[in-house]
Amino acid sequence: MPEMANATHAPQSDNENNGVAAVVKALKEQFQDRCSTSQALREQHAHTTTWLKNQPPDAVVFAESTEEVAEIVRLCARYKVPIIPFGTGSSLEGHVNAPFGGISIDMSHMNEVLEVNSQDLDCRVQPGVTRKQLNSYLRDTGLFFPIDPGADASLGGMAATRASGTNAVRYGTMKDAVLGLTVVTPDGRIIKTGGRAKKSSAGYDLTRLYIGSEGTLGIITELTVRLHGQPEAISGGVCPFPDVRSACNAVIATIQMGLPVARIELLDSLQVKACNAYSKLGLAETPTLFLEFHGSENGVKEQSEMFSDIAEEFGGGPFSWATAAEERNKLWSARHDAYWAGKGLKPDADIMVTDVCVPISRLADCVADTEEDIRNNGFLAPIVGHVGDGNFHVQILVDLESEEDVRRTESFVERLSLRAIDMGGTCTGEHGVGQGKMKYLRKEHGEALDVMQTIKQALDPDNLMNPGKILPQS
Amino acid sequence: MPEMANATHAPQSDNENNGVAAVVKALKEQFQDRCSTSQALREQHAHTTTWLKNQPPDAVVFAESTEEVAEIVRLCARYKVPIIPFGTGSSLEGHVNAPFGGISIDMSHMNEVLEVNSQDLDCRVQPGVTRKQLNSYLRDTGLFFPIDPGADASLGGMAATRASGTNAVRYGTMKDAVLGLTVVTPDGRIIKTGGRAKKSSAGYDLTRLYIGSEGTLGIITELTVRLHGQPEAISGGVCPFPDVRSACNAVIATIQMGLPVARIELLDSLQVKACNAYSKLGLAETPTLFLEFHGSENGVKEQSEMFSDIAEEFGGGPFSWATAAEERNKLWSARHDAYWAGKGLKPDADIMVTDVCVPISRLADCVADTEEDIRNNGFLAPIVGHVGDGNFHVQILVDLESEEDVRRTESFVERLSLRAIDMGGTCTGEHGVGQGKMKYLRKEHGEALDVMQTIKQALDPDNLMNPGKILPQS
Repeated sequence: MPEMANATHAPQSDNENNGVAAVVKALKEQFQDRCSTSQALREQHAHTTTWLKNQPPDAVVFAESTEEVAEIVRLCARYKVPIIPFGTGSSLEGHVNAPFGGISIDMSHMNEVLEVNSQDLDCRVQPGVTRKQLNSYLRDTGLFFPIDPGADASLGGMAATRASGTNAVRYGTMKDAVLGLTVVTPDGRIIKTGGRAKKSSAGYDLTRLYIGSEGTLGIITELTVRLHGQPEAISGGVCPFPDVRSACNAVIATIQMGLPVARIELLDSLQVKACNAYSKLGLAETPTLFLEFHGSENGVKEQSEMFSDIAEEFGGGPFSWATAAEERNKLWSARHDAYWAGKGLKPDADIMVTDVCVPISRLADCVADTEEDIRNNGFLAPIVGHVGDGNFHVQILVDLESEEDVRRTESFVERLSLRAIDMGGTCTGEHGVGQGKMKYLRKEHGEALDVMQTIKQALDPDNLMNPGKILPQS
Repeated sequence: MPEMANATHAPQSDNENNGVAAVVKALKEQFQDRCSTSQALREQHAHTTTWLKNQPPDAVVFAESTEEVAEIVRLCARYKVPIIPFGTGSSLEGHVNAPFGGISIDMSHMNEVLEVNSQDLDCRVQPGVTRKQLNSYLRDTGLFFPIDPGADASLGGMAATRASGTNAVRYGTMKDAVLGLTVVTPDGRIIKTGGRAKKSSAGYDLTRLYIGSEGTLGIITELTVRLHGQPEAISGGVCPFPDVRSACNAVIATIQMGLPVARIELLDSLQVKACNAYSKLGLAETPTLFLEFHGSENGVKEQSEMFSDIAEEFGGGPFSWATAAEERNKLWSARHDAYWAGKGLKPDADIMVTDVCVPISRLADCVADTEEDIRNNGFLAPIVGHVGDGNFHVQILVDLESEEDVRRTESFVERLSLRAIDMGGTCTGEHGVGQGKMKYLRKEHGEALDVMQTIKQALDPDNLMNPGKILPQS
């Protein structure tokens, strides 16, 4: 394998400021008011729901086609100016920061649903289409797109960060949802990865390589994604447990029995308290599972009953379930508002959110150890998790102006990440690496990280594509 | 992107024969009778169920550990001698041929199931474990491994070729089944891709990059794979249709309704005739679907009834279904013996098998056009397909000694591959590229093929890992 000392070097403009200036000048000429250098817009394009420092790009340009993205990339490549693709800015780990400056390409104007193939259960969309937009579009087709990170993220961003959400336990993650991509490569070529066949053995899986590459290998400008038939019936409900461990054990038994749960989410006592207050739920303040079953009328009834038996066996229950849409919607709105509910516990606090994922057999240990860590630090920090996948989030309410708070929070995130890795898990199940999780990748991947660096160097030798993300600086 | 003229150059030993001689000498010293240069063994290690010309390696070595594989790779790398990993030799496209000579590393001694984590529904195995061996091992655990290519292939080989089979419509392919791999890289390092978490967003998806890379980027020496709970109930059956199109339309409706079929296979009239003769089935000789449903007792009953209604709507039926294990086993044995049944149609003929995969909406067109092509050529060629995925196989009975037969068969495969690609599909759904499908990759992938070549060159600059496969010679 060749030397990789330069794999993640800071990008070097031949002629530092002149490179950027030349690119901005050319972009303004070509794109007119679709290219902006306003301070506010630049800061907004580095701002996400992240707790990391804002590092604005030099300019923002709104692309309207794959060909335009390719032109911008070729221009930036000529002057060795970094490129940061921007979806909706809902990422959590500083993915859209511009630590080396450069051009933020905003994809939000590329928001058309191009084609729905209802016989094949797939559709082709531009990357700025958001998940809610797509599901509204699909409403009358009997189909839906299942991947649901909390935010109304863009599909391009979701693919770039390998996003998932509450439905992943049944429908998978973006890794599973995408059939093929159109990608603009770092040298400005336009390639297609994958066709519309449901499976293929024809060569390297470039689709999966770009999914989760966070814009560091190329820019996604079109996606073909799988859809699913809307289930004939849905039932859902909540089930309280005396402690986190019994809730986790019930989850393990549920998965092991092959019960095809569509959603199975854990809220710890504090998160239940927060949701009660924010969403007026009136639940007992104890670790609680939120569940949903998809299937036929008989099927969801049977699944609900089987789960009820499992819950009882592990000391949980009663499982109160409902098929009425309003009740279910109230529940899942509360679940999706968990972030805001958490914030409601201390409205003047800042929020730091992080996620890890472990083998499900280690979930109870990992959550319990993390709860102890939270207590030891006196943090106010609710936990909520996609427990069917072994994935959970911690939301710490802190004062980001306080150096002491930031230091203690960082050190907590480090302990949590290493705990998950030590348990055979990962430092991020669905939020991605960005800037925030870079430092744990060596521990998680060992020498495999060098292989990632070799690929990055081969495909983006000047390190212009979203530099300073995923791969630690050498 | 750097120059890639050399991406797939023939490997160049510094000192052609001396390189191989030195490697073989060193291997014989170290591995004694686990290294052989016997003509019969070498030919057997290039022989597969392929119709392609046998190109034996210079020697075969039986590895017994990851560390041994790494040592062999480092030795070969020093002398620039090609390496061809070998599982069970059941691949179909010349994957284990050695067009540039070199060392075949036989993984069959690495056949231990290392760990079963029943709570997490996963297990860790060596690459020589076969799918039937794994399922025998799991029999008492209540778990099973669903991926079932026709042959009793090794899991390492199945991962390397991104294999699937009859269960893929419900349980996915090797892409979905593998959580993580241990891989020996072309320079002899040992890396791990992925832990045991059910999902991760921590960096590039190397697992999926190695799956389907056919040994051209590294050698898989360990796999962690997902398992599934054995369903509480299984029902299965057969359903005749007046023609291929109505059968395909019934399949589309079934998938679109979200009916969670575990298996849905199409046999054309000739294949039914062949199976009747070979497996004594007594079915009507008309296009027929073989189905299987997994779920609860009520669930499989309900699914069977729903499918029955769908079949009737599309002019098919009656759907005769059965839950008795013997009946089902007879059916699926017959399905898995389709290859031998086909051969039985003309016992003195040779067999050429190929596969393509198209969007399911184009399946009927693709099969019908292919049947017409078969008729026009006067071929004896049954068709069988994993139609839930849009994937089908054609088995042509030919005389491989006849140049005319070979020429006409090759030209048929070319028409079939291009037809599938033109319909938005792929030249291979599950058999892989090997040598046989290389020539169609440019048409299928366009410039994305150059990205594959860049990755290959970066990770294997001397082109020593299974050279002459996947990537066309430049």
